[in-house]
Amino acid sequence: MHTEVRDRIAETQDRMLDLLGDLVAAESVSGREGPAQAVVHDRLADHDLEIDTWEPSIERLRDHPGFFETVSYEEYGYERRENLVATRAGSGDGRSLTLSGHVDVVNPNPVADWEYDPWAATVTDGRVYGRGALDMKGGIAAFIHAFEVLEELDVDLAGDLHLQTTIEEESGGTGGVLSALERGYRPDAAIIAEPFGIPNVGIAGAGVSYFRITVPGEAAHTAFKYAGENALGHATRVYQALEALDERRRERIEYQPAVNQDPRAEGSVTNLSVSVMEAGDWISKVPGEAVLTGRVGWPPGETSEEVRAEIAETVAAVAEEDPWLSEHPPEIEWFGWDADPHEVDTEEAIVRLATEHAEAVTGGQTEYVGGLGGLDERFYQLYYDIPAISLGPRGANAHGADEHVEIDSLVETAQAIALTAMDWCGVAEEN
Amino acid sequence: MHTEVRDRIAETQDRMLDLLGDLVAAESVSGREGPAQAVVHDRLADHDLEIDTWEPSIERLRDHPGFFETVSYEEYGYERRENLVATRAGSGDGRSLTLSGHVDVVNPNPVADWEYDPWAATVTDGRVYGRGALDMKGGIAAFIHAFEVLEELDVDLAGDLHLQTTIEEESGGTGGVLSALERGYRPDAAIIAEPFGIPNVGIAGAGVSYFRITVPGEAAHTAFKYAGENALGHATRVYQALEALDERRRERIEYQPAVNQDPRAEGSVTNLSVSVMEAGDWISKVPGEAVLTGRVGWPPGETSEEVRAEIAETVAAVAEEDPWLSEHPPEIEWFGWDADPHEVDTEEAIVRLATEHAEAVTGGQTEYVGGLGGLDERFYQLYYDIPAISLGPRGANAHGADEHVEIDSLVETAQAIALTAMDWCGVAEEN
Repeated sequence: MHTEVRDRIAETQDRMLDLLGDLVAAESVSGREGPAQAVVHDRLADHDLEIDTWEPSIERLRDHPGFFETVSYEEYGYERRENLVATRAGSGDGRSLTLSGHVDVVNPNPVADWEYDPWAATVTDGRVYGRGALDMKGGIAAFIHAFEVLEELDVDLAGDLHLQTTIEEESGGTGGVLSALERGYRPDAAIIAEPFGIPNVGIAGAGVSYFRITVPGEAAHTAFKYAGENALGHATRVYQALEALDERRRERIEYQPAVNQDPRAEGSVTNLSVSVMEAGDWISKVPGEAVLTGRVGWPPGETSEEVRAEIAETVAAVAEEDPWLSEHPPEIEWFGWDADPHEVDTEEAIVRLATEHAEAVTGGQTEYVGGLGGLDERFYQLYYDIPAISLGPRGANAHGADEHVEIDSLVETAQAIALTAMDWCGVAEEN
Repeated sequence: MHTEVRDRIAETQDRMLDLLGDLVAAESVSGREGPAQAVVHDRLADHDLEIDTWEPSIERLRDHPGFFETVSYEEYGYERRENLVATRAGSGDGRSLTLSGHVDVVNPNPVADWEYDPWAATVTDGRVYGRGALDMKGGIAAFIHAFEVLEELDVDLAGDLHLQTTIEEESGGTGGVLSALERGYRPDAAIIAEPFGIPNVGIAGAGVSYFRITVPGEAAHTAFKYAGENALGHATRVYQALEALDERRRERIEYQPAVNQDPRAEGSVTNLSVSVMEAGDWISKVPGEAVLTGRVGWPPGETSEEVRAEIAETVAAVAEEDPWLSEHPPEIEWFGWDADPHEVDTEEAIVRLATEHAEAVTGGQTEYVGGLGGLDERFYQLYYDIPAISLGPRGANAHGADEHVEIDSLVETAQAIALTAMDWCGVAEEN
């Protein structure tokens, strides 16, 4: 049966590409995921599935230890932003499995940088181009295709199978995967089809925290600069201290799966960046305030609390040595992302199965990767002790211009997921 | 006659305060000066004056050596932004005199910082509060009052007298005073009633130049920071080099009239400030560009060309020592203000006369002040060799909250201007 499933998935790959085309055309930047969820719903409605859709309830999430208010919630709220789980009840008492993907994508701007239309799936040279083709509408199309072929071939899984598509992964996923877990979708294992490049299997995610540091100054007309205090001068010292901290951390912290994920990360598996600096609103005014906004990401090994404390100490040390700042200390605000890192034990049965099939369908060798970015997978691992792995296609330019996915790898992803599901959930004897 | 003029100006000061009230109530932030010009026009229409109003023509100004495109022109153009000159022809062949003031004011935001309504002239404790009360609708009310009293007392000036109100001084005045000069209003001397604090007489203005420095980086997702180059890191070095340049310049450059104007300027008569820093537009993206915008001001002694060259050399020196910037050099753009400094010889007859009368009406001692800010006066001095001085009221908080002018000093300004005009233009014998 494994061979039949593999072959059928490959033979009918055009159905998967049609679905991917519909998904890419459904603009679904984080916060406005509706069009993509409608495509999924339409596609699954004809199957023997129980479909559940819901808007996240911020009140029910707020007390969860994994909760934080995402920037997409702040901007859009959760109205008309539904998650979706389509369930095929198992025919026996096999282990349950969730196949999951996020339908939100990041803004394609500046669109002028694209050679291809970001909102149309252009198929060329064995690739599909478009926003989300790789991250991660390709993976969603792959696992839905896997399910459809299993159904078509009457492969009767013994455990429950959940096809799950969620919102706002790009801004932290508390209203997405965490909301699904809180709604009761707590399988024995989960596979999220993030594009970690089959045959590689993602087993870790980074801790991620956002910060905003407000450095005070005192405004004055620039012609009377001596009457004020330029906040920028002090902000540059804070910036440089944070860069120095990042350098010390990069020397100190090692994490092999991150280097497996991207060899350029050697010596840089943690990263702390001030990504936005804002100061001043008028050219003839010495700015009375400078605001540094940034992100810190780090691999398994430190908690969010520990990393935040180190940043706070660094800022305090700058303030102590700066006569102005010692009287007018900078303020640190933590907002948006607040994720602890996670790691799945590679001896877990779901990891072994995924590895076996990923290697078989590709003929390659799996490396265990992850730890550079924050992932929805963490919610399963950290708060419910459910092993959750990433298994998805190869491609390039996620979040950038001319994002694309390799079609061969979509087929391989669908195959590996189908076979892993069969072995994990079990197949009823009559098949 | 001098005594009669002085006394009448003081006795009828309420007429001046009424005019000032109307002017403050006429919102006239740079770019939208119309309401204030309408108040002036209404007030002068009943007098025996030839009134000329016109919109500046950017095409006629563009080739002038003192021209630059102001930010208020860029934002608003010159349509419906009229200058006004009201001329009383002299009865003989005395020297001509222009009394001038700018009707534009700077934005009062944040209005919440004001105790008084910025758009209503509140009279209390010998002061008038409101945006422009000091800078410089007070001075305009004073010289119009001076003219009205001279007319009322049949003081027949032998030289032409021009009452001139102009636009956009706050953004550089090329469409204001420079446009008036180009239209042909080139008197033998000019008094601009800027609030330099009678009995002090303003004899100098600063050179002013705006700059915008674009520091390149290379954008990347912060999780893959090593793949990018944070423009902010390089921008902080440019910032610090400019601050160090400012410090060297402040040590090197001395200018007594600036210290006379504000004793706190001792050791700081030149000033170079980065007033706006912009970098980054997304928290998870290493910024690919940082833009530093700023202003340099300096007293007489250097040309704009020399100061710009020193800044350009400083930026180039940073780039040379920075491996990334030496391959990706920052770009400097000069925009908005481009004013050379000016200074009027204190032996000029108009300076001597103004000094004599300012000291007489106040009982104080004149100090010669100026050189901290750029002034409309420079156009007369630099390009037409016409001595132009500043003689205006005392007060505080120009450009800030609760701007106010001292009423006594408005009366003294009107008196000193009236008496100076009589002596400068000459008075026909029958009086």
